[in-house]
Amino acid sequence: MSPPVVTLVTDYGIHSEFPGICHGVIHRICPDAAVVDITHGIARHDIRHGAVVLRNALPYMPLGVHVAVVEPQVGTERRSVAIRCADGNVFVGPDNGILSLAADAAGGSVEALDVSRSQHRLEPVSATFHGRDVFAPVAAAIAGGAPFAEAGEPLAPEDLAMLELPQPVHHGDDLVAHVLLIDVYGNVTLDGRHEDLPATGLALGHALEVEAAGRTARATFTATFADVPPGELLLYEDASRSLALAVNRGDAAAVLRLALDDEVRLRPL
Amino acid sequence: MSPPVVTLVTDYGIHSEFPGICHGVIHRICPDAAVVDITHGIARHDIRHGAVVLRNALPYMPLGVHVAVVEPQVGTERRSVAIRCADGNVFVGPDNGILSLAADAAGGSVEALDVSRSQHRLEPVSATFHGRDVFAPVAAAIAGGAPFAEAGEPLAPEDLAMLELPQPVHHGDDLVAHVLLIDVYGNVTLDGRHEDLPATGLALGHALEVEAAGRTARATFTATFADVPPGELLLYEDASRSLALAVNRGDAAAVLRLALDDEVRLRPL
Amino acid sequence: MSPPVVTLVTDYGIHSEFPGICHGVIHRICPDAAVVDITHGIARHDIRHGAVVLRNALPYMPLGVHVAVVEPQVGTERRSVAIRCADGNVFVGPDNGILSLAADAAGGSVEALDVSRSQHRLEPVSATFHGRDVFAPVAAAIAGGAPFAEAGEPLAPEDLAMLELPQPVHHGDDLVAHVLLIDVYGNVTLDGRHEDLPATGLALGHALEVEAAGRTARATFTATFADVPPGELLLYEDASRSLALAVNRGDAAAVLRLALDDEVRLRPL
Repeated sequence: MSPPVVTLVTDYGIHSEFPGICHGVIHRICPDAAVVDITHGIARHDIRHGAVVLRNALPYMPLGVHVAVVEPQVGTERRSVAIRCADGNVFVGPDNGILSLAADAAGGSVEALDVSRSQHRLEPVSATFHGRDVFAPVAAAIAGGAPFAEAGEPLAPEDLAMLELPQPVHHGDDLVAHVLLIDVYGNVTLDGRHEDLPATGLALGHALEVEAAGRTARATFTATFADVPPGELLLYEDASRSLALAVNRGDAAAVLRLALDDEVRLRPL
Repeated sequence: MSPPVVTLVTDYGIHSEFPGICHGVIHRICPDAAVVDITHGIARHDIRHGAVVLRNALPYMPLGVHVAVVEPQVGTERRSVAIRCADGNVFVGPDNGILSLAADAAGGSVEALDVSRSQHRLEPVSATFHGRDVFAPVAAAIAGGAPFAEAGEPLAPEDLAMLELPQPVHHGDDLVAHVLLIDVYGNVTLDGRHEDLPATGLALGHALEVEAAGRTARATFTATFADVPPGELLLYEDASRSLALAVNRGDAAAVLRLALDDEVRLRPL
Repeated sequence: MSPPVVTLVTDYGIHSEFPGICHGVIHRICPDAAVVDITHGIARHDIRHGAVVLRNALPYMPLGVHVAVVEPQVGTERRSVAIRCADGNVFVGPDNGILSLAADAAGGSVEALDVSRSQHRLEPVSATFHGRDVFAPVAAAIAGGAPFAEAGEPLAPEDLAMLELPQPVHHGDDLVAHVLLIDVYGNVTLDGRHEDLPATGLALGHALEVEAAGRTARATFTATFADVPPGELLLYEDASRSLALAVNRGDAAAVLRLALDDEVRLRPL
């Protein structure tokens, strides 16, 4: 029989002992669990980054319990939730939208719980480390076979926080997209995706104009960075089939002066 | 039956292949082991940092064999030791005090060994990578069921190196604490703890004066960083219930010009 | 029975979710696999770095399937290969030489496959993430017991790309070595190794002259960094028994102005 699986997405950072402590908590409760660190390198407090990474990773993960922990820097505390989805995957984390994209991709919630005061939590619950005290133990208990419904108080799925993402818009052959993520190298992920391409004039191997904040730049739509000379702008499909902008050996966000949610018009040439 | 557990705390760094090589050594000797990386991000050569992280993580770890490797930058080589504690946990590492706080928390040593020349070590033992050549194989052998006493030469537990930590002192309502750790963000962990609070005038939600090196600053005792505006100083209990100083989105150690072991007086207002 | 082992060496970086996604892919296909991250911190695009790290780690890894993924920044795409070696280890990665040093150390290839279009690959294969789409699933299938020969198309082992490393040369008592690797601290690994020492006049504890690019510097051959004062140059054997140059608390590559493949003459004094 396959071992139960718990995956983790957090912004705890790679120098920290917080991920390792969550592993310990999980192994104490569910000794046979295979724990997969999807990443602990989410940009701090960046809920959207965490939500998109979890959604993109999900098709490659075994069926299991998926914990995501990113909290906003400022604001009232959110309740902790567990969501059981149509495809059998379970998500555990704060109710701030970080789970919502993956839960949608998993067929949507069929049962949701407020686990803030779960019988599985570790007391005293600290003010700052809910991953250790609430999310990891609740996830491990469910992964180990504890009945889902007994992990918390029932919640109407429609009360769960949803994350709103920008959506690309078609204007003739152009695609008007928006900045979804910017990574540490300045690569810019857009909300446009592979599926949006057929309705545009954009074609692999062809040139395009990128317009943002009233400025324009010429780019090439290529498969990989190395398909353009160093310093040149490219449009590409990333490994999750999202459209993205990069400068080979450069920083596209800096060159184009882009920030999150900025509008970017892609115009075939 | 639960798989045997080996945990690791080191200052090998997160870019290095050293942690992965230790995993390989452990799996060769004890193929079923669950290996938990508590962290490899201990500040280089900072024995106290490693000792405190291991002690704080221990209550969240399964019963098992815990390896900690941090060596001072300069100095004579220490022998390698294994310590079996009253609660059944075993600790393996250099005899420089890094294991001592956790061993105390585990009920103290009931049996100690010099494993420098253990039959389980990998030869030739390198000058620089005892984690691979001594600590990991000794830990894996013990985790896999090899008799503890046969892993090395008996040692009197009272001969083990102990780490001396500063201790906070009460002066009326004030707490005179000391800097125990400073993390990469400049957050300052003090030796004062949750248990020290009742005897002071310090209370959650109230203001206090922080005096260090003849200078004073005003702070608020809050539950989380976000409870004060950006740039303001706060006192909080960290996830291990140690008192700590931080500046929301800032660097408390720099603002207060604090170094390790500095005295910090916390005076309720 | 021991769990099947898959190890990973990549330049994906430690902030990235790419290693975690590979773990997920492996667990989906081979749920019982023990996955060992040798490192994901290889210098980007540095094939030689990855090849040397894999070769040096191999003796400490369980028998298993070893994946290495480092691709050059520019250049035509290489086919993906799997190599079964005389000692039973299997290597999976791009055919750019990254596997060749380890395969040699494993007794050499006895069966090689082009797995670019393996039945085990995940479709659609992305342009940028062959680790997820080809290498991880092929490795997991083989680790889980799928017949090696059915993972791809047969390939003549002599057609596999080989990595050429510089070789040290003896001149009387001197050793003329070359720069093999430079790490993030500026420590310089040479191609000379422990086995080269007996034929030289170099001896532990003794002084030597280091000549590079027409300039000379005095060094001491010591066991550890701490054996020389801060700021001083040392020659040492690293944990893989390669000769290496370092400055205690300094940057040897900068001090000696060394780049990859530069010649370095070590002259006993």
